[in-house]
Amino acid sequence: MSKIIRPYGDKDPHASIELIASTVVHSEKFTADQMPSLAARVSHADSGKTGDNPEDDLKLMNYLGKHKHMTPFEHQSVTFKIVTPLFVRSEWHRHRTQSFSEISMRYTDDPVGKLFIPEVWRKQCTRNKQGSAEPIESYHQEFATNLAKKTYTAAMEGYEAMIKLGVCREQARIFVPVGNYTEFYATANLRNWYGFYALRHAEDAQQEIRVYAEAIDEILTELWPESWGSLKESLKNQ
Amino acid sequence: MSKIIRPYGDKDPHASIELIASTVVHSEKFTADQMPSLAARVSHADSGKTGDNPEDDLKLMNYLGKHKHMTPFEHQSVTFKIVTPLFVRSEWHRHRTQSFSEISMRYTDDPVGKLFIPEVWRKQCTRNKQGSAEPIESYHQEFATNLAKKTYTAAMEGYEAMIKLGVCREQARIFVPVGNYTEFYATANLRNWYGFYALRHAEDAQQEIRVYAEAIDEILTELWPESWGSLKESLKNQ
Amino acid sequence: MSKIIRPYGDKDPHASIELIASTVVHSEKFTADQMPSLAARVSHADSGKTGDNPEDDLKLMNYLGKHKHMTPFEHQSVTFKIVTPLFVRSEWHRHRTQSFSEISMRYTDDPVGKLFIPEVWRKQCTRNKQGSAEPIESYHQEFATNLAKKTYTAAMEGYEAMIKLGVCREQARIFVPVGNYTEFYATANLRNWYGFYALRHAEDAQQEIRVYAEAIDEILTELWPESWGSLKESLKNQ
Amino acid sequence: MSKIIRPYGDKDPHASIELIASTVVHSEKFTADQMPSLAARVSHADSGKTGDNPEDDLKLMNYLGKHKHMTPFEHQSVTFKIVTPLFVRSEWHRHRTQSFSEISMRYTDDPVGKLFIPEVWRKQCTRNKQGSAEPIESYHQEFATNLAKKTYTAAMEGYEAMIKLGVCREQARIFVPVGNYTEFYATANLRNWYGFYALRHAEDAQQEIRVYAEAIDEILTELWPESWGSLKESLKNQ
Repeated sequence: MSKIIRPYGDKDPHASIELIASTVVHSEKFTADQMPSLAARVSHADSGKTGDNPEDDLKLMNYLGKHKHMTPFEHQSVTFKIVTPLFVRSEWHRHRTQSFSEISMRYTDDPVGKLFIPEVWRKQCTRNKQGSAEPIESYHQEFATNLAKKTYTAAMEGYEAMIKLGVCREQARIFVPVGNYTEFYATANLRNWYGFYALRHAEDAQQEIRVYAEAIDEILTELWPESWGSLKESLKNQ
Repeated sequence: MSKIIRPYGDKDPHASIELIASTVVHSEKFTADQMPSLAARVSHADSGKTGDNPEDDLKLMNYLGKHKHMTPFEHQSVTFKIVTPLFVRSEWHRHRTQSFSEISMRYTDDPVGKLFIPEVWRKQCTRNKQGSAEPIESYHQEFATNLAKKTYTAAMEGYEAMIKLGVCREQARIFVPVGNYTEFYATANLRNWYGFYALRHAEDAQQEIRVYAEAIDEILTELWPESWGSLKESLKNQ
Repeated sequence: MSKIIRPYGDKDPHASIELIASTVVHSEKFTADQMPSLAARVSHADSGKTGDNPEDDLKLMNYLGKHKHMTPFEHQSVTFKIVTPLFVRSEWHRHRTQSFSEISMRYTDDPVGKLFIPEVWRKQCTRNKQGSAEPIESYHQEFATNLAKKTYTAAMEGYEAMIKLGVCREQARIFVPVGNYTEFYATANLRNWYGFYALRHAEDAQQEIRVYAEAIDEILTELWPESWGSLKESLKNQ
Repeated sequence: MSKIIRPYGDKDPHASIELIASTVVHSEKFTADQMPSLAARVSHADSGKTGDNPEDDLKLMNYLGKHKHMTPFEHQSVTFKIVTPLFVRSEWHRHRTQSFSEISMRYTDDPVGKLFIPEVWRKQCTRNKQGSAEPIESYHQEFATNLAKKTYTAAMEGYEAMIKLGVCREQARIFVPVGNYTEFYATANLRNWYGFYALRHAEDAQQEIRVYAEAIDEILTELWPESWGSLKESLKNQ
């Protein structure tokens, strides 16, 4: 299974999330999707039964998810490659249980100038200081997009002028806007991807990260429908 | 690849470590063993080159290990099933970066009475307060083993008498000696398995955990010779 | 404030938990108890208001606890010294967010022979495989206690005979029962002490660890009534 | 002790690091600075001796640092308030052992427009792809600074125009350059502050974060000269 999703739509040339790696078991008897059952059964000394009756394994995993017994979900690992704007990356990297390897603008100017422009500009939410609301008026959308392009262009011209002047990349990058794309690999176990999902697909999360959480949901539902589905049971039981 | 090792020798009916699961990549171009190269290359925006020239990937990983750039080694996950005495388990569980699922003597008395007896009894070290030295005199070895059996028997009789009296398992277990076997699943990324190995195969580690560290080394050398070998480079550079 | 609690009652000569250290602020304007308010206010750029109106700070912390915004509770640290049986220690050390420094039976035989005997022996629970129920019959209590003493004595005699034979401490300890006391320092931030409390004061936790969770509650309620109380709000909202 | 340092010099109106909170002990016998000695002594069952002979405590801590026995340094906590540009913040937040509470540009535009301009512009390093070298020619310095101001101004005008148009803060912020200041609280234990220091005061670290590492060194040397000094011993033994 190889899987890449474009969370901002197919027209955005950059934003993407791709399944890079995941856990497999060295056994014919059960699958990686059943590992939470294996791990939970060891408390009762019967992990050897895992795979005998797949329905029992699924029932057990559902029980674990529903009652928030989370440690059995820590044995499956997933790695994604993510291309996303810097401001999404900053929220992402607050998840301290993930392992990250990221492009460095000290090393390379490759990503500089790959810039995010939203397809739809949204109004400030008035109920909620941090959020956004419905789109701004449609006759303002194009104006905003043009303004974005112009503002971005000025930033990029500043960056390039600095480089031409001989200024080091690590200082010239101070002009790079947080709408610039970055790319990184992120690895976490299933429990911690669930923690990410629970927080970032929530209603008060910013739309621009929420679509990544939804993409992760889509990929993990295909990869491990039973264990991932069981984890999602715990949300219903909030 | 399926792999089980018996760290206390084939005569010990219990002690074992088994490879349960590990990471695979969803790509034809490179392997899980090359993931540290993939992760390191992303800083320079050329992770796409991973797998083009395997020798370059290996050279890069060797460089990372030698200079202790450890984060690229966090993307590969390995799960073992471990059967080991409680006193080894307690040292093992100090490694807070691993995920554990363990048998519970509150739930089951399955492991009670599976007891560790060393093949060779060692003298107290005199140079080093914590360690041990050469074997005790050979004519004392059998005496010690018989003493162990007798002492263990008394403990087990106490446990069983308690259970017969109707005492709950969670209290009756207070007599279980730390030489009793337990079993658990442990998952960590390669960097953290290396941290375990570096500490537990060291000279001042207790022999009874050192042989598990050596078993892990043997399994990971077979599974991922390049990335694991590169990590071990860092030890030489201490 | 110096505070020591004896969770198994004053007659038990060993079991204890003592407040060793905690966070103080370098400011006259607010207290350590108000740090979650300080940390939460920084999102709105008004952490400078912390301490101006203590009622507002408390209201804010209550809101954070109730809605499970947990990160603001990570800035206060608490260290306890704990003396507890090995089987409680093993459950305790599963909390991987705590820092531990523990006595080592490889280094010293100081704790060997300090043994836990419950004041009341409980029956196995029949509803719940892992738990216990009401006390065993009162005419069996003394019998069980005598049996415990006898069983413990056999274990200690085995240990001492091994030491006399010249066997190293690290091997002789295999007879030490998990009812033996150990001692350790444990440090965690307030959020993580709360995680410990939530899990270990629960109904399905073993009585012998539950009383430690209650002792922590008592100490933290005295030390930081507002922030600790706010965290406990989240339990009501389960 | 209250302490604030301005890592970019007194002329920079924003950049700062301030000691907010730290651990104190609830004992007259020893100090927080001696906690690593307390924690190490518990392995030998003599933590009670801590404070009896301060020279012995210091000698022990020096030994721990020199031989990289790091866990005893995990019991002391320190909180700083940091005001720093976003690009420094991103490197900082890679330290996953710290707890962070940060200003949010979704909530407030308070920090928007507080912008970092280096006092000295440096050349790209040619030996080392990621680093910088000597200052650019002095007659270019002022030109670069003016260019910076102009480029920043264009970004801020874009941001403000977006806000005026009714666009939400969380989208308008895409123009904010990574040279914009942010502020956050960061808490970690002494071992982990040392990990930060070791990595970020190194030669290949960017100057703009290195001066924060040096400020931390200055503050911790004043706060806990013995334990912090002992940790720094381990660097000499690299």
